[in-house]
Amino acid sequence: MKVTHAATKSSEAPSLAPLVDMISLDMAGVNATIIDRMASEVPLIPQLAGHLIASGGKRMRPMMTVAGAMLGSEDAAVRAPAIKLATAVEFIHSATLLHDDVIDESKLRRGQDTANALWGNDASVLVGDFLFARAFELMVEAGNINVLGRLAAAAARITEGEIRQMAITGQPETPLEDYFDVIGGKTAVLFSAAAAAGIEITGAPAAQVEAMRVYGMELGMAFQIMDDALDYTASAEQMGKNAGDDFVDQKVTLPTILAWQDGDAEERSFWQRTLGEANFVEGDLELAQALLASHDAVNRSVAVAHDHAMKAGEALAPFSGDGRTAPLARALADAALFAARRAS
Amino acid sequence: MKVTHAATKSSEAPSLAPLVDMISLDMAGVNATIIDRMASEVPLIPQLAGHLIASGGKRMRPMMTVAGAMLGSEDAAVRAPAIKLATAVEFIHSATLLHDDVIDESKLRRGQDTANALWGNDASVLVGDFLFARAFELMVEAGNINVLGRLAAAAARITEGEIRQMAITGQPETPLEDYFDVIGGKTAVLFSAAAAAGIEITGAPAAQVEAMRVYGMELGMAFQIMDDALDYTASAEQMGKNAGDDFVDQKVTLPTILAWQDGDAEERSFWQRTLGEANFVEGDLELAQALLASHDAVNRSVAVAHDHAMKAGEALAPFSGDGRTAPLARALADAALFAARRAS
Repeated sequence: MKVTHAATKSSEAPSLAPLVDMISLDMAGVNATIIDRMASEVPLIPQLAGHLIASGGKRMRPMMTVAGAMLGSEDAAVRAPAIKLATAVEFIHSATLLHDDVIDESKLRRGQDTANALWGNDASVLVGDFLFARAFELMVEAGNINVLGRLAAAAARITEGEIRQMAITGQPETPLEDYFDVIGGKTAVLFSAAAAAGIEITGAPAAQVEAMRVYGMELGMAFQIMDDALDYTASAEQMGKNAGDDFVDQKVTLPTILAWQDGDAEERSFWQRTLGEANFVEGDLELAQALLASHDAVNRSVAVAHDHAMKAGEALAPFSGDGRTAPLARALADAALFAARRAS
Repeated sequence: MKVTHAATKSSEAPSLAPLVDMISLDMAGVNATIIDRMASEVPLIPQLAGHLIASGGKRMRPMMTVAGAMLGSEDAAVRAPAIKLATAVEFIHSATLLHDDVIDESKLRRGQDTANALWGNDASVLVGDFLFARAFELMVEAGNINVLGRLAAAAARITEGEIRQMAITGQPETPLEDYFDVIGGKTAVLFSAAAAAGIEITGAPAAQVEAMRVYGMELGMAFQIMDDALDYTASAEQMGKNAGDDFVDQKVTLPTILAWQDGDAEERSFWQRTLGEANFVEGDLELAQALLASHDAVNRSVAVAHDHAMKAGEALAPFSGDGRTAPLARALADAALFAARRAS
């Protein structure tokens, strides 16, 4: 009986596996297109881009596009342009990673040396620009100018979000609203545009495109909030980056905002000295983690992420009534919950 | 008599003035659109972009687009989307300038502090990304996906050119062919795409679009070769940047390649120590300038620029036979010669 129970529990835990399974054929197309389109006569480009792209990640953003297209059409020919869009989405994401690493002066990403650590900032800036330009070439090939506009607007919003993040960096008193605005721009908008673009290019009705836009937005919020929460709990091995990176970079995130809001004068002066003034001493990260724990700030952040994941699932209602789309919609809802629970 | 002679000579010297005059109305539209579309709720964006864009330059790239559109149509309504394209071209150029300044760690551009000197590299990378994304939004609004593809391909080629430039930096023995390839990518392709896009969006015949593509390419080559030649002759005041910047940055350009090719073993070991190994001592710039002079390398570079400018003018033959387009074609030919003679 215990075995059955355990098995039931296991199958209830949210997982990315069903989604990965259902979209594997189209994702194979995306992976092939990624390899093909990072090619250049300039050897540094495939070398550096390849290092970044091969180093993994779950490719959740292009998965949004591919899944959106599958909701929109069962005809692989109709979905073909979505493969290009999904590749473009991954290239835009990769470009922002390259530029972020320059900005953060990060030396480790997903447990590996970052491109700028290996090749220098100059190369990271330029190859990022190349991937960005190549992304637009792919979108042009996909041939739908409205979809292109949606992704171009997302790209502009990403950089606005990153710049706003710079503005709140070192400001421990940042209001929640500003934080949500930052992560909406820097992270959620690309998930959202990726999901909407995939279904839009199949010619699906506007209400379905809008449903996927909301789904992607909510999943993206859940994803970034979890990322920010895990930064204070995970080891470099689990996280694929250095634990406490955000703290050292003076990044103000949901856990620290909650701890600041609930903190007394002494605690606030700690956050001001560290996050605010980068005046770090030995043991500060451990003290920060202890303060977060005393206010349950990480768990409360995870709960906020979970709320967004639930809303992501609810947005998929238009696909639940149809026998063809319902299983994929369930897998997508599960993927959103997974994003709000992932251990790494 | 002397006065008349002087006046004649003066009117014969190539000038940008006739072109500026003929396209002033549409360029006013471009300037207004630039101001309008660099707006953002994120204050740093208009601040930093405004600093760069207000600091001037002749806006020769958007002039290409506007002039192309005027060759294509006398109807201002038909030309309206070209205003957006011209703005996009200026934004792409501005984005590359911001990223270049990060890469070159340049502190002075057109005689003013660079954006990265004032706001830091982080902001320059991100605002560059924003302008790049905004450029694509403008192109989407212009509404022609073929034109968009032309400009997206140019953007990819620019970054390939910049990366190739990195590869030849510090290599004084670089072959001429590689140098021309670098400047074709990093500079001439944008002039070319800008010129072609302007006329293409008016629905002009393919032969005319091709004529403008070649015109822009040749003008762009002339422009960059002159820029590289002037780097060894002009003062910071004339040039708006520090004289000898390329030398200190170990940039291999046409004058140094010519001097290397004609140099004896001792001269080559000088170029190797300086350009090759960045092992500079007091007086090296003056010695470099003396070596260039002894091989007439700057004047020979200017002659190459002039050849390209002449070819630019010749490419405009399809517009010379028509009474409506002939005066503008003459002004464009003059602008190309101006680019190959400008003192700053």
